[in-house]
Amino acid sequence: MKVAFQGEKGAFSEEACNKFFEFPDTIPFDTFEEVFTAVTAGDCAYGLIPIENTLSGSIHQNYDLLIRNTLYIVGECFLRVRHCLIAFPGVTKQNIKVVMSHPQALWQCAGYLRDLEVITEPVYDTAGSVKLLKASGEYNKAAIASAKAAEIYGMQILETGIEDNPENYTRFLAIGQNSVALHGEEKTSIVFELRNQPGALFKALSVFALRDIDLTKIESRPLPGKPWEYRFYVDIIGALCDIRVGKALDHLGEYVLTLRVLGSYRRANME
Amino acid sequence: MKVAFQGEKGAFSEEACNKFFEFPDTIPFDTFEEVFTAVTAGDCAYGLIPIENTLSGSIHQNYDLLIRNTLYIVGECFLRVRHCLIAFPGVTKQNIKVVMSHPQALWQCAGYLRDLEVITEPVYDTAGSVKLLKASGEYNKAAIASAKAAEIYGMQILETGIEDNPENYTRFLAIGQNSVALHGEEKTSIVFELRNQPGALFKALSVFALRDIDLTKIESRPLPGKPWEYRFYVDIIGALCDIRVGKALDHLGEYVLTLRVLGSYRRANME
Repeated sequence: MKVAFQGEKGAFSEEACNKFFEFPDTIPFDTFEEVFTAVTAGDCAYGLIPIENTLSGSIHQNYDLLIRNTLYIVGECFLRVRHCLIAFPGVTKQNIKVVMSHPQALWQCAGYLRDLEVITEPVYDTAGSVKLLKASGEYNKAAIASAKAAEIYGMQILETGIEDNPENYTRFLAIGQNSVALHGEEKTSIVFELRNQPGALFKALSVFALRDIDLTKIESRPLPGKPWEYRFYVDIIGALCDIRVGKALDHLGEYVLTLRVLGSYRRANME
Repeated sequence: MKVAFQGEKGAFSEEACNKFFEFPDTIPFDTFEEVFTAVTAGDCAYGLIPIENTLSGSIHQNYDLLIRNTLYIVGECFLRVRHCLIAFPGVTKQNIKVVMSHPQALWQCAGYLRDLEVITEPVYDTAGSVKLLKASGEYNKAAIASAKAAEIYGMQILETGIEDNPENYTRFLAIGQNSVALHGEEKTSIVFELRNQPGALFKALSVFALRDIDLTKIESRPLPGKPWEYRFYVDIIGALCDIRVGKALDHLGEYVLTLRVLGSYRRANME
């Protein structure tokens, strides 16, 4: 079964694919947009995209792509992200002047990099930074990526777990063409637009609070072309087929301009 | 009066400084962190930082720096951001293979760049991308920045207003050591942490809704070390000295774990 992910082989997204799916055939793509396109076109059965990280926050581009495409969220998965400082074999930490990686990885290791007194260089991907390092042949540069990426490119790990805070988890969403209907404890992800008037968000959240439905995430994104108005993405505990959730969404319909269910899926645990 | 901003001379932040302050002596810094440090140390009277954009959304790093520092928000300012495609004199659009700029600018011009069929290269700053281009001497590269940046570095503007959506505004916050107390219509910015329990956010927002206090922005950021718990930044219409706002914040104190007022300041208009 083909599963699309963004990045080079050895990316954390590929590690998450192997955790979430059984024996996936992981297919790398340069951009998140291409992951959505591959699943929409049927070239891949599923895609797996990062949506938020406990240190650096939400990956906004994927929130925006969820709304611009018509795919469903079919599952979620948590991955503990352990960053490694990677360089050519024989190089020591004292040699390093420049460190390359994805901006989110650089941000997650900001304190460590400050102490190391190096220049940072943002690149498109974590595993890709190891590939670029290898191609550059530069011995005073290092990359930040997974241990797997170091192995794939035959490079040396100088230090493991260099993120500023060990509670470094990324939440991934599995996306597919069809919605799923599962038993057990589920989550439902929705997105809605509100009228720009006092109390609008309060009323929207009341439909869940009045029914004791737990809200696990709220994210606002700007509405293009409508300055200082926002679209809200909300995750709630409960399946779409749960009668309380159905009633809450009916009720929400009274307050919102638009409402879309992005998916109802099995809730992941942190292990 | 010295005002700190992030970026090179010709940055949109510098343009905003000139709009907000009367005859400021604008001082450039490499990072937002250095802007906060310069104001805290008293080297600059004020700093001006971007906080959100109508196309690309919030600048999370500055939300995080507001909480890590003890400065006050003393004002806000809106700037219409017009991006230019900039290259060496004599170069035409057909010559361009690579376009450099800050990731947020690349994101705001994503559709335009897709049609141009070029490779994008994220760098640290918009005006800085023009500086880098000039130093590189490469005629098949372009940068995205302000018209002012093109002028400063003696480069050519190939096209103006290349952002995907003309409603491209950035909201800036002025930060200083002392809080201000102004008359007229004001905004107050606060930040709070909630207990992780059902209905917590709903209760927090009720203190404003029950008093008809308008909420103009809500932003959540992860709490480092507490996976999937969040800190909320909220902007409301009303001054801190307004009795309704005071009562609302007293009431909010009953529901939150921590609460900090980041500042009460004059509300800007879009012109």
